[in-house]
Amino acid sequence: MNKPIPSPQPSRGPTEHEVRAQIVDAATDYFSRYGYEKTTVSDLAKAIGFSKAYIYKFFDSKQAIGEVICANRLAAIIAAVNEAVAEPYGATEKFRRMFKTLLTAGSELFFADRKLYDIAAVAAAEPWPSVGGYEARIQDLLTQIVLQGRESGEFERKTPLDETVNAIFLVMRPYINPLLLQYNLDSAEDATVQLSNLVLRSLAP
Amino acid sequence: MNKPIPSPQPSRGPTEHEVRAQIVDAATDYFSRYGYEKTTVSDLAKAIGFSKAYIYKFFDSKQAIGEVICANRLAAIIAAVNEAVAEPYGATEKFRRMFKTLLTAGSELFFADRKLYDIAAVAAAEPWPSVGGYEARIQDLLTQIVLQGRESGEFERKTPLDETVNAIFLVMRPYINPLLLQYNLDSAEDATVQLSNLVLRSLAP
Repeated sequence: MNKPIPSPQPSRGPTEHEVRAQIVDAATDYFSRYGYEKTTVSDLAKAIGFSKAYIYKFFDSKQAIGEVICANRLAAIIAAVNEAVAEPYGATEKFRRMFKTLLTAGSELFFADRKLYDIAAVAAAEPWPSVGGYEARIQDLLTQIVLQGRESGEFERKTPLDETVNAIFLVMRPYINPLLLQYNLDSAEDATVQLSNLVLRSLAP
Repeated sequence: MNKPIPSPQPSRGPTEHEVRAQIVDAATDYFSRYGYEKTTVSDLAKAIGFSKAYIYKFFDSKQAIGEVICANRLAAIIAAVNEAVAEPYGATEKFRRMFKTLLTAGSELFFADRKLYDIAAVAAAEPWPSVGGYEARIQDLLTQIVLQGRESGEFERKTPLDETVNAIFLVMRPYINPLLLQYNLDSAEDATVQLSNLVLRSLAP
């Protein structure tokens, strides 16, 4: 297992992709059990049965592997949210479902596996680029929901759109940023319902 | 300096009070310089020139001293807020001033002295009783402001009072709980203005 499987095609793209995926899967498993912070690339190499040098052919560092894991989990959260707010809901219901799903999927993907939270905490503290992308996606989705609500007459239109979106994002942030969520987990479900109601009152025409 | 100054009165109350204050002052100074977590009662005793046993006559533990320091700082924040919302302001202005002062006074008292933040973090994580009392005071003040706004017609009256107050408190919490504030410090001033505006929109009749 110390060499990549030779590709039948001239391009080694797909093979490289497969090996990368194999490393990421094994690392996800390993980090879940032993934590991200305490694991070294050597530990990982030993566990997968690859040489350390071989892993470094595909990833520059442990962080590079962690970033892929983090990006995968964040993408899964966004996918869950997109599914939750798919038509035919009105803007009010979409907003509630979005906030609720962000909390549920986020808690599940980062806290059910308590050890994987390690990665989320490092990612959010630095922050890693995937976290910035994740927050931008949420803000985009929020913008769409607010626009829909303004068009349908569910929401007020006086406040500048970016101010509305940014302020709502600030309200949600303690429950979608894992670094903050760790302090809010116990009461998060009730809190997000109450905060959804407050935000919706602020959006009333 | 190893014995309390003998009191001229039969009661040793005032003297005890003075010695306690002296220990707390010296500890505040010492913790600011070397941090709360790393300091032991022995370090403290040496620095003040008291014996360790003598300090234990007045405080059961290092935490007991930390709790007094924390309670003093929290009381100073509440005093600053009370001053900021004193008459003759209307409820809208009072709310803005309250949120702003909580942030300013909180940052100053716990973060200007970066080492003293140590105490606040431990206090908020446990949480210490003084933190519960502090949050209750803020909720009381918030209730008074909301009631004033409802009476004057500035705020809506449909939402149950406790739901309104609790939800607003949840919005403010990341900026008044030192454990959360550490992650929000950079953008806190802008954020609290935007959040004040959102809360006030949610309160509109």
